[in-house]
Amino acid sequence: MSNELEDLINLFSKLPGLGPRSARRAILHMLKYKDTLMPNIARTVEAAHRTIKLCTICGNVDIRSPCSICLDDKRDNLSICVVETIADLWALEKGHVFKGHYHVLGGTLSAVEQRGPDTLNIENLVRRVAENNIREVILATNATIDGQTTAFYISERLEPLKTKVTRLAYGLPVGGELDYLDEGTLSAALASRKALA
Amino acid sequence: MSNELEDLINLFSKLPGLGPRSARRAILHMLKYKDTLMPNIARTVEAAHRTIKLCTICGNVDIRSPCSICLDDKRDNLSICVVETIADLWALEKGHVFKGHYHVLGGTLSAVEQRGPDTLNIENLVRRVAENNIREVILATNATIDGQTTAFYISERLEPLKTKVTRLAYGLPVGGELDYLDEGTLSAALASRKALA
Repeated sequence: MSNELEDLINLFSKLPGLGPRSARRAILHMLKYKDTLMPNIARTVEAAHRTIKLCTICGNVDIRSPCSICLDDKRDNLSICVVETIADLWALEKGHVFKGHYHVLGGTLSAVEQRGPDTLNIENLVRRVAENNIREVILATNATIDGQTTAFYISERLEPLKTKVTRLAYGLPVGGELDYLDEGTLSAALASRKALA
Repeated sequence: MSNELEDLINLFSKLPGLGPRSARRAILHMLKYKDTLMPNIARTVEAAHRTIKLCTICGNVDIRSPCSICLDDKRDNLSICVVETIADLWALEKGHVFKGHYHVLGGTLSAVEQRGPDTLNIENLVRRVAENNIREVILATNATIDGQTTAFYISERLEPLKTKVTRLAYGLPVGGELDYLDEGTLSAALASRKALA
């Protein structure tokens, strides 16, 4: 196999979700449509690299910084939804469920993998909340141990500011069947039960 | 989400083995290491596109055509191993199990998906075998219905040339445990049993 090909396969096999075998398959697919697909990929990656910026306020990606969400004055600029990753931000935006601003942490705290608060975008959040008189901070970290630990840590950091801090509710996923849910979800759903008005 | 980003995600989500979700994850990973990874990927894809050629003899990919396997005069140039895809060729080369030449079909015949003989690199194979006085053609297609159908079709096409045509043996994979094998493999292994010398 030629060096150029090996380089390409190595590069792709390091992307998350792709191992050596699926990288090989992807590259062979590219080679099959070599003259259309390969220049297109090279051009699109290059264009994305040139145009895409990280928002200095919230950590989102966009073609400008501050990003269009941070600049949108139709959105509620007094509430901030804190997410672990840009993918989480996209998921919420896709659902059109939240009309405030975001803050991307860039991951979670982790005792096992020794990721402390300084590896996350937390200082900026505390400053943002303090300086902009934010009314509510919604902690939308994942419902995992690390996600919950991170949410708890952030709520402690925000405590002195007296801002309202909330987290997403735990419960049954809509359309979910009890028979297929884990005990943790069932017990959380039961504990947070609501009166039928 | 910006257009540049959507284009990139769309492009990647069409590679085999990547869906929309894993394409998003891969792109977010790229964005995380934006200034090192993205120019590198653009450059490597472009370099591969510029340098890699399809071998006009066997269908392999290399930086030259004919490829280095076809040009290697230390290899047995009287036997040709016929494979479905370049990935299969790589698998055999990686195992150092075959020292002849190859012929890449580019897929299989398929009744269901209506792929006939003219979608495959078969005419070139017949011509190669006829013109070069090939001694043996080894049909190394997959042990699937389509792979076997293709092997059978090729053996019929080569029949008039009186060349020896063989196929890979079916049987137990080395290290395989009987308990975990399907009936087809067990019955093939039994039918091809050998005397212990």
